[in-house]
Amino acid sequence: MDLKQALESLETIQRKLYAYNAASSALYLDGDTVAPRDTAEGRGIALGVLAGEQHMLLTGPELGETLAELEAHKNELDLLHARQIEELGRTVGKLKRVPAQEYMAYAQLTNEAGDQWKRAKQASDFGLFRPYLEKLVDYNRRFAAYYDPAKAPYDALLDEYERGVDTAYLDDFFSVLRQRLVPLIKAVGERPQPDDSFLHRHYPVEQQKKFSDYLMQVLDLDRAHCGIGETEHPFTLNFNSADVRITTHYYEDDLASSMYSVIHEGGHARYELDVDPKLDYTVLAGGVSMGVHESQSRFYENIIGRSRPFIGAIFPQMREFFPEQLADVTEEAFWRAVNRAQPSLIRTEADELTYCLHVMVRYELEKALIGGELAVKDVPGEWNRLYKEYLGVDVPDDAHGCLQDSHWSGGSFGYFPSYALGSAYGAQMLRNMERDMDVWGPVAKGDLSGVTAWLTEKVHRFGGLLTPAQVVANACGDFDPACYTDYLTKKYTQLYGL
Amino acid sequence: MDLKQALESLETIQRKLYAYNAASSALYLDGDTVAPRDTAEGRGIALGVLAGEQHMLLTGPELGETLAELEAHKNELDLLHARQIEELGRTVGKLKRVPAQEYMAYAQLTNEAGDQWKRAKQASDFGLFRPYLEKLVDYNRRFAAYYDPAKAPYDALLDEYERGVDTAYLDDFFSVLRQRLVPLIKAVGERPQPDDSFLHRHYPVEQQKKFSDYLMQVLDLDRAHCGIGETEHPFTLNFNSADVRITTHYYEDDLASSMYSVIHEGGHARYELDVDPKLDYTVLAGGVSMGVHESQSRFYENIIGRSRPFIGAIFPQMREFFPEQLADVTEEAFWRAVNRAQPSLIRTEADELTYCLHVMVRYELEKALIGGELAVKDVPGEWNRLYKEYLGVDVPDDAHGCLQDSHWSGGSFGYFPSYALGSAYGAQMLRNMERDMDVWGPVAKGDLSGVTAWLTEKVHRFGGLLTPAQVVANACGDFDPACYTDYLTKKYTQLYGL
Repeated sequence: MDLKQALESLETIQRKLYAYNAASSALYLDGDTVAPRDTAEGRGIALGVLAGEQHMLLTGPELGETLAELEAHKNELDLLHARQIEELGRTVGKLKRVPAQEYMAYAQLTNEAGDQWKRAKQASDFGLFRPYLEKLVDYNRRFAAYYDPAKAPYDALLDEYERGVDTAYLDDFFSVLRQRLVPLIKAVGERPQPDDSFLHRHYPVEQQKKFSDYLMQVLDLDRAHCGIGETEHPFTLNFNSADVRITTHYYEDDLASSMYSVIHEGGHARYELDVDPKLDYTVLAGGVSMGVHESQSRFYENIIGRSRPFIGAIFPQMREFFPEQLADVTEEAFWRAVNRAQPSLIRTEADELTYCLHVMVRYELEKALIGGELAVKDVPGEWNRLYKEYLGVDVPDDAHGCLQDSHWSGGSFGYFPSYALGSAYGAQMLRNMERDMDVWGPVAKGDLSGVTAWLTEKVHRFGGLLTPAQVVANACGDFDPACYTDYLTKKYTQLYGL
Repeated sequence: MDLKQALESLETIQRKLYAYNAASSALYLDGDTVAPRDTAEGRGIALGVLAGEQHMLLTGPELGETLAELEAHKNELDLLHARQIEELGRTVGKLKRVPAQEYMAYAQLTNEAGDQWKRAKQASDFGLFRPYLEKLVDYNRRFAAYYDPAKAPYDALLDEYERGVDTAYLDDFFSVLRQRLVPLIKAVGERPQPDDSFLHRHYPVEQQKKFSDYLMQVLDLDRAHCGIGETEHPFTLNFNSADVRITTHYYEDDLASSMYSVIHEGGHARYELDVDPKLDYTVLAGGVSMGVHESQSRFYENIIGRSRPFIGAIFPQMREFFPEQLADVTEEAFWRAVNRAQPSLIRTEADELTYCLHVMVRYELEKALIGGELAVKDVPGEWNRLYKEYLGVDVPDDAHGCLQDSHWSGGSFGYFPSYALGSAYGAQMLRNMERDMDVWGPVAKGDLSGVTAWLTEKVHRFGGLLTPAQVVANACGDFDPACYTDYLTKKYTQLYGL
């Protein structure tokens, strides 16, 4: 194999990986949207085969030879190819270090654990899930050693989700959050709450759908390249930079739920649609990491979407979509209602202010679990203790406590911190954006083009061409968690008149 | 490789083929239903890769060795495995005989020809399509020689669509149709037409959707395993025997259109859902041939769905779905309206009586084209001449003539006859069914369970375990086209008082 052949092989293999991903995505999307209820088995078989083919391709001799040839010519490669072989090499190395037998057994375990987690959550009985969680923790401790034996296990896992992030980094981060946010939340809790009862009037799905179309327009999401569907849990799925789908869930008694799902997923979609198309069909396509992705979705959702200027811009239109429901509501009241902050039990329903404390609880538990300092059996007690300490709430049962999230059942340990990091990155991006341009003038007119152009320039267009850390440095400079706590302090001081 | 390994390999390879099919189906389904408008490119790349992988698997050494080993132990195999290797061997043999270079060039040609056909149809200009059709005919003549050099080219192609069927068989079949149906259609044309104007009142989509749900219930299509969606052209797609989808198209000014699409596609779905699940994930899964499939869809659509007893059974319910639109309509009038027969220009809109003559025109043209007796340039003239001769209509332009169907642009020559054969098989199945049981008593009560049980026993359950000819023999006995013309003669004599 010479260099030219190796580059051709590199392209062919990446197209195959793209095709397997696109195929799996189409099957997942179908399964989550229109597929009849009892059809999971056949879809599971197809997905299993595709995953197996992908694994074979990644660990096979052809890619091995290709990467070896390209490594030998590393200095002759442009950035695009250099980053492709870096990413592929990383993935291949990781897969090859995990024995095939364990890889298969683990896939089966997560499959079963997912089912069992659902049953346990339904019964609100951690005991049912405990043996699975024990095995999952064991596997992940072993995998961590395969990934990077030089690192502490949890650090090795964190690196999988957010390259370059480790416990030292996160301890600093969460320590700032804890010090600044716990008292802030307490102070907010002592103030009277705004009325948000009008958000729970009757909002028919058909009216909400038209409103979603409008919101997608405000985010400049081109409907020829970005679809919207309905699923139990909203998500964004990207096939390539010209084909992105978002989903939402309509509740007729909750206007804000779908509204902010559309803006949140719309932020993810904005990122995907703005990635340089020349990265399509390569391993560098799409958003670079989960943390950076959340920085974008939460930027549009919270920093823009829950800002006073944005509400001012869209509220007159909203009144046309919901003339009866919002007849007696003012812009100001609406803005206050969608920013109502109150400690609660469920992460996915948490407001912008308290959200990160939910993540912090999970971070501390994961760190201790994977570090071997916390036994699985003690998870519920520790969970409840931390919720009381950080959020001041009493957890009534496991379903509203340590069984609420699916992540651990899927084998994801080290994923949660990205949610909080993303929020913090976004706040720092805002600070830099405000230095570069007039952010709020155009937003107050419903014009997000400047915001999107800035984010595209600093973040979106790179896809995976830069590492997560490079993208963050590019958009944020040196990471400073205080930007985030400052942002929240300022916002909630104004909202609650502290 | 020993026998045990070969059997394992056989199963693994078939599961992979299933997975590639399911993946492609999910991508197609997405593309035809919810995908945003300008997303075809990325989907095309994924589909191309999957087709390539499938081709490599089918022509690769692993399957070759597997089949060789199993061939050597042929006498030790059960019917299931024997049929699997027969079908796979057939497919592999065919693919291997076509040079890879030609296979690829042809795939590209059909892709381009499809686009060009659309343009030509829009412009109603056969000249635009002619050079593509010439190439397509040339390729198919060459492919026919690869498939089976011992056969006349058109016979070799026919065998691809409906194993065992050739021009001798079809000449007999169509000759009976021509002799019996041309005068019958003429006689019908001389009688006054029933009023069907009430079918074109305003039928809102939402009401029609509820009616579709009802029709699926009448066909006993379990919604946990059979979904319904909306597409430009209705179709049925099967992932496996537990996961089938049908689509329809609603026209607010045409009640019968979606109604009979749902029943027709529902018939296809019934077949797929009733195939023995032990054939799932093998090459024997699903309906055995296009002709047998059409026999089932058209059985439910026409023989049952347009029968007097069936209309009697569902009409009281229909009036509940459409109380205003059908207030002044009687069962009898409705039955007559949905059976209105009149020669027309467009095959897909043709009624039950004249439909097969549309097919006959295409059969004669294909036979002459592939046989080298008709030049492509003479297709429009010959098309128009035959429409005048068989159907008595004047073709005004190519869009309403030889450019109306997409089949040839996709490279399908020999596919059309299956539509007519299916109709004829169905009529003969009805004759046998009536000998075995009381068909119409239960149907008059809206109970199709007996009909479905008979068809499942004789046809559906076998999937590809029997050949098309065996299935037809099983359900029909010796094929006798007169069953079909007798059925039509009796039905239309009654309808039109001949």
